[in-house]
Amino acid sequence: MGEDEITAWFAQQRRLSGEDFPIGVGDDMAEIRLSEAATVLITTDMLLDGVHFDLGKATLRQVGYKAMAVSLSDCAAMATVPVGAVVSVALAKGFDEEQLKELHGGIVEAGDKYGCALVGGDITSWRGDEPFAISVAMLSRRGATEPIRRSGAKVGDAICVTGALGGALLGKHSEFEPRVAEALKIAAMVSLNAMIDLSDGLSSDLNRICKASGVGAVIDSSRIPISDEGQKMKDPLASALNDGEDFELLFTLAEGESEKLLKNWDGDVPIARIGWVTESGKMEIKMPDGQMRDLEVRGYEHLG
Amino acid sequence: MGEDEITAWFAQQRRLSGEDFPIGVGDDMAEIRLSEAATVLITTDMLLDGVHFDLGKATLRQVGYKAMAVSLSDCAAMATVPVGAVVSVALAKGFDEEQLKELHGGIVEAGDKYGCALVGGDITSWRGDEPFAISVAMLSRRGATEPIRRSGAKVGDAICVTGALGGALLGKHSEFEPRVAEALKIAAMVSLNAMIDLSDGLSSDLNRICKASGVGAVIDSSRIPISDEGQKMKDPLASALNDGEDFELLFTLAEGESEKLLKNWDGDVPIARIGWVTESGKMEIKMPDGQMRDLEVRGYEHLG
Repeated sequence: MGEDEITAWFAQQRRLSGEDFPIGVGDDMAEIRLSEAATVLITTDMLLDGVHFDLGKATLRQVGYKAMAVSLSDCAAMATVPVGAVVSVALAKGFDEEQLKELHGGIVEAGDKYGCALVGGDITSWRGDEPFAISVAMLSRRGATEPIRRSGAKVGDAICVTGALGGALLGKHSEFEPRVAEALKIAAMVSLNAMIDLSDGLSSDLNRICKASGVGAVIDSSRIPISDEGQKMKDPLASALNDGEDFELLFTLAEGESEKLLKNWDGDVPIARIGWVTESGKMEIKMPDGQMRDLEVRGYEHLG
Repeated sequence: MGEDEITAWFAQQRRLSGEDFPIGVGDDMAEIRLSEAATVLITTDMLLDGVHFDLGKATLRQVGYKAMAVSLSDCAAMATVPVGAVVSVALAKGFDEEQLKELHGGIVEAGDKYGCALVGGDITSWRGDEPFAISVAMLSRRGATEPIRRSGAKVGDAICVTGALGGALLGKHSEFEPRVAEALKIAAMVSLNAMIDLSDGLSSDLNRICKASGVGAVIDSSRIPISDEGQKMKDPLASALNDGEDFELLFTLAEGESEKLLKNWDGDVPIARIGWVTESGKMEIKMPDGQMRDLEVRGYEHLG
């Protein structure tokens, strides 16, 4: 089973009641009702040395920053407001105080930037030199709108992305800016039908929206904004489709809403319309030569 | 630095405002205000193979159960009501589907028993056979009372524990029952001043209450309930004082309240009064021979 199959299996095991859990397993965050008036959303991400970062190259400050930024990006994906996080870490036996402080610096740097307080944690130590692992659990609250889910895409919707895609491993993946403010701003300007953050690559994450919404999609390759780093890759288009770790927003909205958004958007991060939602149930891509092809899911699979 | 020094250092780095964070770093859970009327509490615990459990002996079902039970015990320590949890895991590359299902079984077994839903997670895989790690983040809400903190112990208070202590490594540590229901019941019957769960041993955890409250304590060794497993250890009293992983409740309350509690308590889990809070600032123990001695902190230190 891949990551998505496992998630689906988990979700099947226990249907969470819609009243107590407005959003259950299968979105970027789950939502829990605490009282009639209040809900809270939660996400968790585990990052491992040698898999999600490489302590031979990255600093501990970068690792702390990235661990928080990945969860902040989940808050952005739902257009919710980060409020607090807890962080647990597994350290090698020899890990010292200065290293811990550097890691902490990266965690609070990311938290401060996006208004997310570090409220607790757990520090554990291996018996030997087993590799470093860090897990973040982050809470957010609803913004001005309902949380935006993956399952709301409608046939005829425009498909948009923020920023530019591809080549994140050349640097961006350890220093990226989660689109928290952009997501809240977009959701306040127009009515969004579906949204996700691009953690595993456009082809993988668009597929998640399509599957959850029961729709298909056509992407116009000429409209995909490819980053400078992506342009440096052997196949820039493939890089933009499949590299992963872009941590940009991918969302769908009615045609008219997308026109309104693109006309009025004054944010620093560009927004591009890259395709539209279809009823075909499959993903297609219009290639630079004008040919239509099936768009294959080739993004990063955590358990691939 | 030991675990407590690190926690203190973290807490100093950023004072969380009392309005948004009624309970900050340094208790069993932090409390976050979500709106005027609503707060949520959160805790996180990371458990490592070879440190907190041994997959050579424990089943994955036991590991999943224990990971949840440790956090449930934190909910109990504050007399709060568990509502939901997210779980992240780091698996060796060869980890298969059946193993994942067994782990999941243990997680939901513990969750179901205490009304705590599994709402999400993150499954990651090492590149090779690095050891298994599991991190739980759990949310709870206030019960009928304010959350009970470590810092409220008052000179003259009675000190009580639930259950019996010592020898948890002989078995209880992987199958224990977090005292969620007992904590809520006790807090509803009487006014508690301070509470903690016994994760690292009576001497360590009582020290945390004393330090947080600025008080001392006297424990009467003859009143400490020692478990059957503790009785099997070479030094049963030392085992009850220092073994850790008892996951019982340790709490302080006014003398009169303790009398009321002990008289009216009809729960299945016994409660014993084992000492009293003093103004000395140090911990002392009345030994079986009647001599008073300083009670040294010898419990489990996560970073020892």
